[in-house]
Amino acid sequence: MACKNCETKPVIILPNSAVSHCKQCFFKYFEKKVNKVINQYKLIEEEDHIGVAVSGGKDSTTLLYLLNKHIKKRRGIKLSAIAIDEGIQGYRDKSLDFIKKFCKEQEVDLKIFSYEKEFGKSLDNIMKTFKGVPCSVCGVFRRNILNKKAKELNFTKLATGHNLDDEAQTILMNYFRRNIKASSRLGPITGVLKTRDFVKRIKPLYFLTEKEIATYAFLKGFMDEFNECPYSKDSYRNRLREVINDFDNKYPGTKYNIIYSFLEILPLLKSEYKNELNYCKTCGEPCSRPKCKSCEYVETLIKP
Amino acid sequence: MACKNCETKPVIILPNSAVSHCKQCFFKYFEKKVNKVINQYKLIEEEDHIGVAVSGGKDSTTLLYLLNKHIKKRRGIKLSAIAIDEGIQGYRDKSLDFIKKFCKEQEVDLKIFSYEKEFGKSLDNIMKTFKGVPCSVCGVFRRNILNKKAKELNFTKLATGHNLDDEAQTILMNYFRRNIKASSRLGPITGVLKTRDFVKRIKPLYFLTEKEIATYAFLKGFMDEFNECPYSKDSYRNRLREVINDFDNKYPGTKYNIIYSFLEILPLLKSEYKNELNYCKTCGEPCSRPKCKSCEYVETLIKP
Repeated sequence: MACKNCETKPVIILPNSAVSHCKQCFFKYFEKKVNKVINQYKLIEEEDHIGVAVSGGKDSTTLLYLLNKHIKKRRGIKLSAIAIDEGIQGYRDKSLDFIKKFCKEQEVDLKIFSYEKEFGKSLDNIMKTFKGVPCSVCGVFRRNILNKKAKELNFTKLATGHNLDDEAQTILMNYFRRNIKASSRLGPITGVLKTRDFVKRIKPLYFLTEKEIATYAFLKGFMDEFNECPYSKDSYRNRLREVINDFDNKYPGTKYNIIYSFLEILPLLKSEYKNELNYCKTCGEPCSRPKCKSCEYVETLIKP
Repeated sequence: MACKNCETKPVIILPNSAVSHCKQCFFKYFEKKVNKVINQYKLIEEEDHIGVAVSGGKDSTTLLYLLNKHIKKRRGIKLSAIAIDEGIQGYRDKSLDFIKKFCKEQEVDLKIFSYEKEFGKSLDNIMKTFKGVPCSVCGVFRRNILNKKAKELNFTKLATGHNLDDEAQTILMNYFRRNIKASSRLGPITGVLKTRDFVKRIKPLYFLTEKEIATYAFLKGFMDEFNECPYSKDSYRNRLREVINDFDNKYPGTKYNIIYSFLEILPLLKSEYKNELNYCKTCGEPCSRPKCKSCEYVETLIKP
């Protein structure tokens, strides 16, 4: 089956519509989808200083590339990249080299912050004694740094590489774990709070699947191989990924349906859960309890 | 592990709490849960005439037995049973015999209505030419008869044997198929419409799992074997059943979490979707389009 637009040899069959695309038409399709969500949800506004959270993976690399392309067509918008060095030997050191190189090529300013410097210990070091799930402490520390530094660096928005698959998994995860309130903070743009407290998150890859992004990143030659974090064993999320992929294979459109079902409910959730936050007594960052999880981890894992 | 209450030999370990129960304590637990949902959601009110939709299966048999027991403790409430004869040889004939016997024992008045008489053809007959999914036409015809006859028989509520597993499956099914509006009509009691149009549905077994009901029905000696409809091949629902059971085995409480997550959202859905209905131009029954699906099937499958 040839490309639906230009009869060239196709590189991808879109999972939802069974439409074939050649390389150039796929790029067009992909970029149009990113621009559409940016415009529709007003992800980027005049005078914005967008910080892109980059990990060196296919999602955030694609995101940085496309946002850099996007802002060239608009005036007065600034773009920076922010990376976190968790301190994972054999993984993060490699990806940081890649990130530095890529940001240089893209002429985007990059700031790197490490767990070592911010909290006093690398993740490798923490994991020598911590017997829990690495992703839980790592996620808390990463979000803490991202939010703090986004404010310090005067970002008006923080862009992340979350894709359609990620979001569908999180939606179901919150449903299965009775954590509906957390879902009220999902969607292509979040930020019920004032900018002072919490920099708005935007997800320009919201409507693109993992497969589409992997194809795009591969065809653009961003990377030859996809590295995975050696600690990544979020079995709950992985199980949900399998379930959703199974259903989507058998009943094409399921992933999109989950997202569109959710977007139908999201405004109701947003008006129900106002997400009023407290401030951590120790660090002053916004959080939902008297002390933030990050300070709790610092006290128990770093300086016990 | 002995029964948590009386140290007798246990018959069941409750999936969610890992608590063991002996036969008598399990009956108490089970019946308490049914009475609780009846009281909490006001499923049965003074002067009600409850029609119980019975199929001869474990759920509706348990339901009829328990509602009959329940109303004996309350005044002025009437109970009847209603069964549908779809015309499925080797299956429905057997279960109708069982239903007649059971209703006689329980001293509950039973009315039986058949597809043959109401629509002109049995399901077996329809399936000789119909190449679609049997459950879709059967579900439409069954709901049509139940609603029409419930009104004719002056039922104020129609009780069905839907259990926690059924509801969890339907919730996810509507999510996966982008049919959130349909979910606004779920819950332990439905009936946004006036009684004149649509008899309220109640689901007293709402918080009981399939396993608990099967155990109850078996221990009460209602039936020796569970028959399944020979046409039952709802692969979508069956796949979801497997997924939910898998998660619930691995992460106990998942089924309950799905239900409680949903019940958190349900009031929002109910106020968002007012469920204003049209009336079928052919039969006058409430429906969402100009002509109801039942009349459409009659025209295409029965009298083409």
